[in-house]
Formats: sequence, structure tokens, C-alpha cells
Amino acid sequence: MTYLSIDAARLLERLSVLGNTGRDASGRLTRLAASSEDKLGRDLLVSWLRSAGLSVTVDGIGNIFGIWGDIQRHQPLMIGSHIDTVINAGILDGCYGVLSALSVIEALQGSGKQPARPIVLTAFTNEEGVRYQPDMMGSLVFAGGYSLQAALASVGTDGSILGQELKRIGYAGSETPGSIRPAMYLELHIEQGPILEAGDCTIGVVEDLQGISWQRVTIEGVANHAGTTPMAMRCDAGLAAARVITFLRDEIAATPPTVATVGSIKFQPDAINIIPSRAVLTVDLRDPDEQRLLAAEQHLTRFVKQLAQQESVEIRLERIVRLKPVAFDRDLVGLIECAADVRGFKSRRMTSGAGHDAQMIARVCPAAMIFVPSRGGISHSPDEHTDEADLIAGANILLDVAAGLSTSCDRTLPCV
Amino acid sequence: MTYLSIDAARLLERLSVLGNTGRDASGRLTRLAASSEDKLGRDLLVSWLRSAGLSVTVDGIGNIFGIWGDIQRHQPLMIGSHIDTVINAGILDGCYGVLSALSVIEALQGSGKQPARPIVLTAFTNEEGVRYQPDMMGSLVFAGGYSLQAALASVGTDGSILGQELKRIGYAGSETPGSIRPAMYLELHIEQGPILEAGDCTIGVVEDLQGISWQRVTIEGVANHAGTTPMAMRCDAGLAAARVITFLRDEIAATPPTVATVGSIKFQPDAINIIPSRAVLTVDLRDPDEQRLLAAEQHLTRFVKQLAQQESVEIRLERIVRLKPVAFDRDLVGLIECAADVRGFKSRRMTSGAGHDAQMIARVCPAAMIFVPSRGGISHSPDEHTDEADLIAGANILLDVAAGLSTSCDRTLPCV
Repeated sequence: MTYLSIDAARLLERLSVLGNTGRDASGRLTRLAASSEDKLGRDLLVSWLRSAGLSVTVDGIGNIFGIWGDIQRHQPLMIGSHIDTVINAGILDGCYGVLSALSVIEALQGSGKQPARPIVLTAFTNEEGVRYQPDMMGSLVFAGGYSLQAALASVGTDGSILGQELKRIGYAGSETPGSIRPAMYLELHIEQGPILEAGDCTIGVVEDLQGISWQRVTIEGVANHAGTTPMAMRCDAGLAAARVITFLRDEIAATPPTVATVGSIKFQPDAINIIPSRAVLTVDLRDPDEQRLLAAEQHLTRFVKQLAQQESVEIRLERIVRLKPVAFDRDLVGLIECAADVRGFKSRRMTSGAGHDAQMIARVCPAAMIFVPSRGGISHSPDEHTDEADLIAGANILLDVAAGLSTSCDRTLPCV
Repeated sequence: MTYLSIDAARLLERLSVLGNTGRDASGRLTRLAASSEDKLGRDLLVSWLRSAGLSVTVDGIGNIFGIWGDIQRHQPLMIGSHIDTVINAGILDGCYGVLSALSVIEALQGSGKQPARPIVLTAFTNEEGVRYQPDMMGSLVFAGGYSLQAALASVGTDGSILGQELKRIGYAGSETPGSIRPAMYLELHIEQGPILEAGDCTIGVVEDLQGISWQRVTIEGVANHAGTTPMAMRCDAGLAAARVITFLRDEIAATPPTVATVGSIKFQPDAINIIPSRAVLTVDLRDPDEQRLLAAEQHLTRFVKQLAQQESVEIRLERIVRLKPVAFDRDLVGLIECAADVRGFKSRRMTSGAGHDAQMIARVCPAAMIFVPSRGGISHSPDEHTDEADLIAGANILLDVAAGLSTSCDRTLPCV
């Protein structure tokens, strides 16, 4: 049996060409959203979309659409990701999903059959959120979760205004965000974690996406002399901070899938011989189950209350970010798993630990994701790597699922 | 019964005048060693010493001596402390000991009797160690623990050279450090800790001084995504750092008198959603018993070895400072305790948690210290405070002990 396959050489070549677009003098790849470098990447992508015969439109938040078929007549299958990057990025994050989507469309075009269901390739604006907050902005605006006006007024880390920057680079489009109504959405992405590699799997069948809870913990103690203050008379903000960290590891994240991370900490006055008067730390809590995530947050709240009393300090928790978990569409997840089986790729169902545009689009239509392995779990780094065979495998799974879904418009999945 | 007493009003007045010498435009008291502000303080002190009829000499490291009696004939009793300050200091730290020593000499002079044993008032250079390292430098050079040449070559935090600065302010003296051979040394100081206040004591009878062990702990883990990296696959330098902190509190410093402090910590890359690849923290360990201090250091070393394995990180310990504990002279300690009893002041024997010039002078002659309460245990701050009654009480105890020790030269205490 022979399968329809994507043009592997062309995909890899394009990944390389796009990956070399927007590098700085020292060779670092940085295409921050709506920057001049981002414009270079966008122009290149648009030229490829046009070459493939797609009709290109851009919406008000700068999301780029490459349309194949009559989306006025039938709700399309949407496939895509993003092409903005972090600072000093790898070449795969986001771009792999967008360029694979193009390869899928070209493969279907090459098969000579016009699909019954239109297909729309999408590259969402500002997924990374490095220059403008919040991240996943383009897909969030598209899904109606954030107003276009507010998004365009975003002030960047460099003081720029997103709306002005989009105009400047020529990507403030006229399309109303969300006016294209996808029937379903698929996103292919690198895992950015170590699970597939550890399990020797080629395909990650992403069935859900973790909820995220970010909090800032501020602990106020009393600065005092490290030599002259007996242990029992201390109000040590640093010690309380350490107890929060070990509590998160030993109590909150003792059993999978809950994960908890303290990535940032600061002591004041931060001197070797002074008991810290203040400690500020961040808590990153994630769980694919909302009830468990809520319970973890409540457990932490109870713990710090008790800890404050125990260590004679004051502890304040502030919410920074809170995103509910997203369950992807069961039918789409099943199709992906089935496609991997048929091709003979070892796969596993998994949870996405990172945020993706798919979680925003899941608000308006059935969505799912396909992951391929990340070597060492590394991403957001020039060391980001996925073996070519895995890149090709992932794109072919996207092709198989997209082919199946676009064959007819019979399968009507509920749209919100 | 009436006692000889110091002139309380004069002591308080001088503390205030010296405490207002060297304030900056915003009113902060900062007389760093060998600075222009330090010169103002020194000049004032020397004028007072001369007014009291003392013979003033200065040694090569800038220590100031006010001599009463013939020190060629008899080994003197030395009493003193320092007058350099930290940045934004209180007015008592060091100055209280020096000015009380002057009050003691004046009270003895006023009694009309010339003591059999000479008395030398000393103000040691650079006790605080803020501008030049190490701290307690003047007394350390005096005691032969650090070469004069090395000390004078010290480069300050402002790039200055101590030797040049001493010359500039006129305090590079001709006396060879250590050429004055004290028979015994007494130092009166504020406690800088909360123990006397908590016990409602007026006088601290300091019988020993903690050994100090300062180490830097560097933990190398692996930076990874906070969402996509399962807990079991992490090499979290921050978590290991937290375990060091709680270990120090729960195992090393679980029972007095050992104290352990982590005052400084840094994470890398220090981002909310990235597992720390590196944590650097400081450990301040103190104990009045050398064997216990050694055991604590060894316990920590064993712990981090095991922790490194457990958390899949690398841990490096570096020694920064190591000072052995100092036991003060039993006879002098007994005299101080007795003097407090006779005056009816509630006293307690205690350990000094901070370093003092007395610990250096203890290398060359019997030494001891007298403490008075520090409100809230606060020092190195404008909030530093001791009630006037306690300041007067401490100076009178110094007077009583000095009077007894200077009455005759019979009591020969061994000199190194």
C-alpha cells in the first residue's frame, strides 16, 4: 500500500530558508511579533502561499490565512500555527506547523483531487508573547477572547504599539478576526518536552492541554544579624520561601501529572550575614484537570497561611496568569492516533505542557494537536532539534488526518 | 555605699556629637574607614583624648592610642573599640566602647588616684570592613594576624588604596602595630542582638565569640520548560537550593547555640516558566564551639553530596571566610559578672554572635567584652538604639572592672 506523502525535501528546505530569515549580525534567530524581522518571515510565507495558488488574506490582528476552496460555501478545516519566534530561537517552534500545513495542501493538490471541505492554512500573530503581552494573542483575538482594540493598543517591551507596528510592516489586515469560521482545527508542533523521546515515540497524540496557574508569593520577615539572632527569634523570609519550594515539590507535585515550578526568586537585602527581610518567588502550577489545579491552588493557600504563622512572617499570594485546562476533541484525537497506527509510528496520548494557539481555537471549534519529539526536551533555544524523519512523519500524519477530514463535508462537528 | 561613676551627661553628649560627625547631605551617618568623614571623627576623638591629658600615638595601620601612664614600665590595661561605621549607621556601634573608655579614664582621673597599671584607650582602624576587606583589620594587624604591608595595599570598594587614604587623612602613624603590649583588653559594645532585651538584662557578660564559617553553594541543574518537563525528569537547581536552606534550619541549627543563615540567593535564568539551571546561595554558619562548627560543616558537605545524587544536580561548596571561635578570659569574664552583681544589674553570660576587635586582641592577651541591650536586636541601622540608662550602666561596669584591674600590677595575666 502506498500513501500520499508530503514533499519531505521541500519541507526541510523551507524550514531552513525561513529559519535563516531574520537572523541578527551574530547569527541569532529573532523574529519578534510585528518586527521588521517578522515582516521578512511573513513576506516569505505569503510568497510561498501565493505560489501554491492559495488566496491570501490578513485579519486586523495580522493573522495570515492561505485559503484553498470556497469557505463561503463550506466551513473549512483550519491547519496552522505561528511563525513569530522568541529571542535567539530555534527554527522549528511554530514554523514547523505552518510549513507542514503548506506541504499538506500541496500534497493534496498534487493528488489531483479538490477536497470537498476547504482548507485554510493559518499563521497566527504573536504566539510567543515576547514583545507584546499576552502570548497566543492572534489566536485569542481570532477566538473572540480578547478585543481587537485592546490587542492593537498593546505596548511592547520596546515601547512600540502593536497596531502601529502591524501597519508599518504591512500586516494590519482588513479581515475581521474570527470572520472565517473553521469547522475544525489541527496544529502540528514540536513537543518542547522530553516525553516522546523518553518513550521512543514518533507521534504525540495531544488529547489535552494543561491548565496554568501563575502566582507571585511575597514573604515579609524581619532583617536581622545572622550571628546574633537566635534561630527561635527569627522571622526569616528566605526560610519560608524555601519551605514553599519544597512543599510544592513534595506535596503539590508529588504525583503526575501535576507539575510545579519555582523559577524565580529574590531575597532582600540579599547579604550573606543578614536574615532576609523579604523574599519574592514565583509559582508555576500546571495540571490537565481543572479540579485538581484548583485543589492544588487551595492547598498552597492553606499551606502559606499556616507557614506564615509557623515562621512569624507575612505571606501574600498574587495571581499573575490563570488559564483553564483545555480538552481537545475526542474524535480528532482518535483520528490522529489511528493515522499514526496505520503508518506504523509508535505514538502516545499526551498532555501539552506548553500553551499553543490550538487552545484558543478550541474555544470556537473542535481542535487537536500532533506532537513530534524534541531532542532533550529543549526548545526556545538554538539547540532545539527534531530528527528529520520525525519532522516528515509528523507532517504525513497531519496530511492523513487532513485528507480524511477534507474528503467530505458530511462530518459536521459542532461549532461554538 | 557610693561608687565611682562616669560622667553620664558627658558620655551621652559626646556620643551625640561624634554621631553627628560625618553625616551626608541627606543626614545619613557614614564614616567609612580612612574616608574624609572618618578623618573628622578621628580628629574629634583625638582632641578629646588630648583634652583628657592622654598621650596620643597612631600606629602604621591608623589605630589611635590614648595613653595614660608609663607603658614602658608596666604593661597597660587596654580598653576600646572602633569609630568607623557602616553606611547609614547608628551612633553607638564601636563609638560607645571608645567614648565609654574615655569616660572611664576621666572618672579614674577625677578620683585623684594615679592607677598602678597604665591604661590605654584604643580606637582600631576599619573594624566594619565595608570599604576595605577584611573587617576587624586594625586589631588583626595589631595582633600580628595580617601583615601591615598587605593591609595598607588593600583596594577599597571605591578603588582607593588604604595606605594612601590613611596618609591623605593624616593617620598613617609611625608606631609599629603591636609595639604596645597590653596586659589585658576589655571592650564594651552594644549587643547587636535581641538576647539581653528578651531576658530583661542590663549587662551581657560575653564569655565567648562564635566561630564563623561562610560558604558559597553553587548548584548546577538543567534549564527546562516548566510545563512540559515531568517532575521526575527534572534537574532543578532551585529545588536543591531550597532543600539546602531547610536542611540548615531543621538539621544543622535545630538546637542552640548553632545558628545558620542563607541570606543571599540567585537563580538562573530566573524566569517564571523555566526550571532553574543554576542556583547560587550563601551559607553563614556560627557556633561558639569549634568541634561543633566543624561537625556542622561536615554534615553539610555530606548532605549536599547526597542531595546532588537525589536531585540529579551538581553542587559545589566554596569557603569564603572561616574564623575559629574565641573563648574570652575566664578571670576577666568573672570580674565583669561580679561587677554587674555588685551594682545590682541583671546580667547574663552570653556568646557574641558578631565579630569584634576583642576577638583579635584575644590572640595576644586575656580579653573579654561587656554588652548592653540593643532595642529589637537592631544594629547597622539608624534605628540602632540602647536606652540611656543601659548605656550608663555599661560604662560604669567597664569603669569598675578597669578600676580593679588598674589598682595594681600584681595580677599578672599571661601574655602570648
